[in-house]
Amino acid sequence: MIQSGPVFLPKGFKFSAVKAGIKASGKLDLAMIIAGPKTSAAALFTRNLVTAAPVEVGRSALAKTKGRIRAVIVNSGNANCATGQPGIRGCKKVCAESARILDLEAAQVFPSSTGIIGVPLPVDKIISHLNLLISNAGPSLEHLQQFSEAILTTDSKPKLASVPLRSGRGAITGVAKGAGMIHPQLATMLVYLLTDVAAKPPELKTALHKACDESFNAISIDGDTSTNDTVLLLASGASEISYQSVRNEFDRALQKVCGSLAEQIVADGEGVQHMVRLRIEQARNRTEALQIARAISHSLLVKTAWAGADPNWGRILAAVGRSGVPVDPNKIFISVGKQVVCRRGMACVFDERAAHQELSKAECEVGVKVGRGKASLSFLTTDLTQDYVKINADYST
Amino acid sequence: MIQSGPVFLPKGFKFSAVKAGIKASGKLDLAMIIAGPKTSAAALFTRNLVTAAPVEVGRSALAKTKGRIRAVIVNSGNANCATGQPGIRGCKKVCAESARILDLEAAQVFPSSTGIIGVPLPVDKIISHLNLLISNAGPSLEHLQQFSEAILTTDSKPKLASVPLRSGRGAITGVAKGAGMIHPQLATMLVYLLTDVAAKPPELKTALHKACDESFNAISIDGDTSTNDTVLLLASGASEISYQSVRNEFDRALQKVCGSLAEQIVADGEGVQHMVRLRIEQARNRTEALQIARAISHSLLVKTAWAGADPNWGRILAAVGRSGVPVDPNKIFISVGKQVVCRRGMACVFDERAAHQELSKAECEVGVKVGRGKASLSFLTTDLTQDYVKINADYST
Repeated sequence: MIQSGPVFLPKGFKFSAVKAGIKASGKLDLAMIIAGPKTSAAALFTRNLVTAAPVEVGRSALAKTKGRIRAVIVNSGNANCATGQPGIRGCKKVCAESARILDLEAAQVFPSSTGIIGVPLPVDKIISHLNLLISNAGPSLEHLQQFSEAILTTDSKPKLASVPLRSGRGAITGVAKGAGMIHPQLATMLVYLLTDVAAKPPELKTALHKACDESFNAISIDGDTSTNDTVLLLASGASEISYQSVRNEFDRALQKVCGSLAEQIVADGEGVQHMVRLRIEQARNRTEALQIARAISHSLLVKTAWAGADPNWGRILAAVGRSGVPVDPNKIFISVGKQVVCRRGMACVFDERAAHQELSKAECEVGVKVGRGKASLSFLTTDLTQDYVKINADYST
Repeated sequence: MIQSGPVFLPKGFKFSAVKAGIKASGKLDLAMIIAGPKTSAAALFTRNLVTAAPVEVGRSALAKTKGRIRAVIVNSGNANCATGQPGIRGCKKVCAESARILDLEAAQVFPSSTGIIGVPLPVDKIISHLNLLISNAGPSLEHLQQFSEAILTTDSKPKLASVPLRSGRGAITGVAKGAGMIHPQLATMLVYLLTDVAAKPPELKTALHKACDESFNAISIDGDTSTNDTVLLLASGASEISYQSVRNEFDRALQKVCGSLAEQIVADGEGVQHMVRLRIEQARNRTEALQIARAISHSLLVKTAWAGADPNWGRILAAVGRSGVPVDPNKIFISVGKQVVCRRGMACVFDERAAHQELSKAECEVGVKVGRGKASLSFLTTDLTQDYVKINADYST
């Protein structure tokens, strides 16, 4: 279940947000995280080969500093994507100018952008607001909330998740925006994970990979991969708890924070009526379970059936059959909630009203057993509604 | 352009159709083709691992007879899919009973089914109508038209295409139904290609593969592959023109018939407003051109933008970037109609009104150049409309 709950503030971070006039709406659109001197970092980026300027600049910042990031500068309202060399130069200029004011190296400032594709980044607007942005920074919950609002685009609400470590002596707190690529020319999932544990960059990288595999890499709204997707983990070390001393607790907590943010992102997807938890069981390994989950969750026919709360197992069976995994249809069982609706690849008697009711819930469960092995996977996806089409078909350019 | 035009009747075939009460609507739902004693056959089937009973029985009929098929029995209203061993037995019984009346071997009768998944085939209804079906058979255009109507499910109209050979001494004529898997629990594209040329089964197979690659394998409506898809080519030999003597003309004509049927199928897709001809250019080879075309045509964001006649090149660029083909974004050009709308992966000035007008046409063109080689591909796809979702979300079970 989605649970944002109380927020535990990790020590060693300050937050800020201002209105720089990038969004036409006039809302908060420029935000910053300032981190203490011992901070370590690790990040994961979109696998799309078309990447935005900040993804390229951020990747090289991590490489140059060997994972030592001291500030994050984020703008919403403009993705700085498909903007060529001028986009790269603009992004670098914003980082350099932020670094100058903060007395850092340019590569210690990590950039993100989210918003319209193909429009030049308004570099002057951003730079003229940096002094105000930096002087406003503070460590309070209100500062963090302002940050969480400033990074939004089409999201209906901010996304926060937080878990204490060692009974509150430390914490992991995550802030996210986005719901896949879901709006006309607007892109991007951005996730910032902050902890005050002391960790080396390679330790963070391993923990981040594991947590993302089980969360952000196991969700799908529309199957489109954004050009700007970024997950950044910063560890300030300010709690003086070492990663090695809390490793298991930390890994579980990071998993929990990422899982909650992933759920919040899916639930906030455009036009989403039902969130569907797909449970793939009896796969030979995790990779093929993921392959089956993706085939089902990308099927327009399955997703539209879910929009009608229709327990249409034939479409699910057909999606499994074309997933590329060499399944034996005679071993496939499909369930809706606790009821089996397809047994050994065939129709079986079930309570259609109960199945319809299960699929009518805001969050429902669909299970697929493929009879090949022991690997299982929980994958979060959504239905496809007329609203999604309406929102995304609005003529925008 | 879609062109059904005049129909040239290939010699050596008789057609029939009756109402057997399989469809709730009471329309024609049982149909047959009876072919002369010299007939050769080749077929292509769905690649989905979940296959319907008639696909399995048909495949083995071709193997057993070494490509010598004498009759085709088709029912609409029931897909005989996900029906297990009883489904296989029912299908075989229908073939055996047809063969008995026609004085053939059971394996000389090729079966097809299209309709609801997971419901037992009404074998008795079918068998009790076989005598009437066979006694009604005739070689006229009216008989062929009745056949073309009886195989439909959610199609809005029959699909026919025909090309004469040797100035009308021979012909290739195709009949098709379906528009991908587009309706609640209804499946299937069925295509029957008939010619009176004399050809050996392996010759037919080679010609069929080539023609399908350029037509049925280069279209996509919703990306779902049906469990029943079948393309069957029958050559009666009744014109006494040998395949070898007209090989090039035959291959071109078959390509033309398949291309026209593919276009008719796409244009008749549920909720389709715009048919989009994707032109992928400068790929290294055909395989990667197809991979790029599929990534674009399966993107919900691209398809919904097209529904709004929105020249949203950012979404197309992002789809190319995640296609799996190692493109260099800086080499990508995207055009709408004759206008370039994205140059070297970046925004460029274009006439937005003209681009919107091009995309508002019933059939429009979108071009993508990827700067990797010399292979190109024409791929036919559609927009994704609210109507598609509405039709497919209707609660049906």
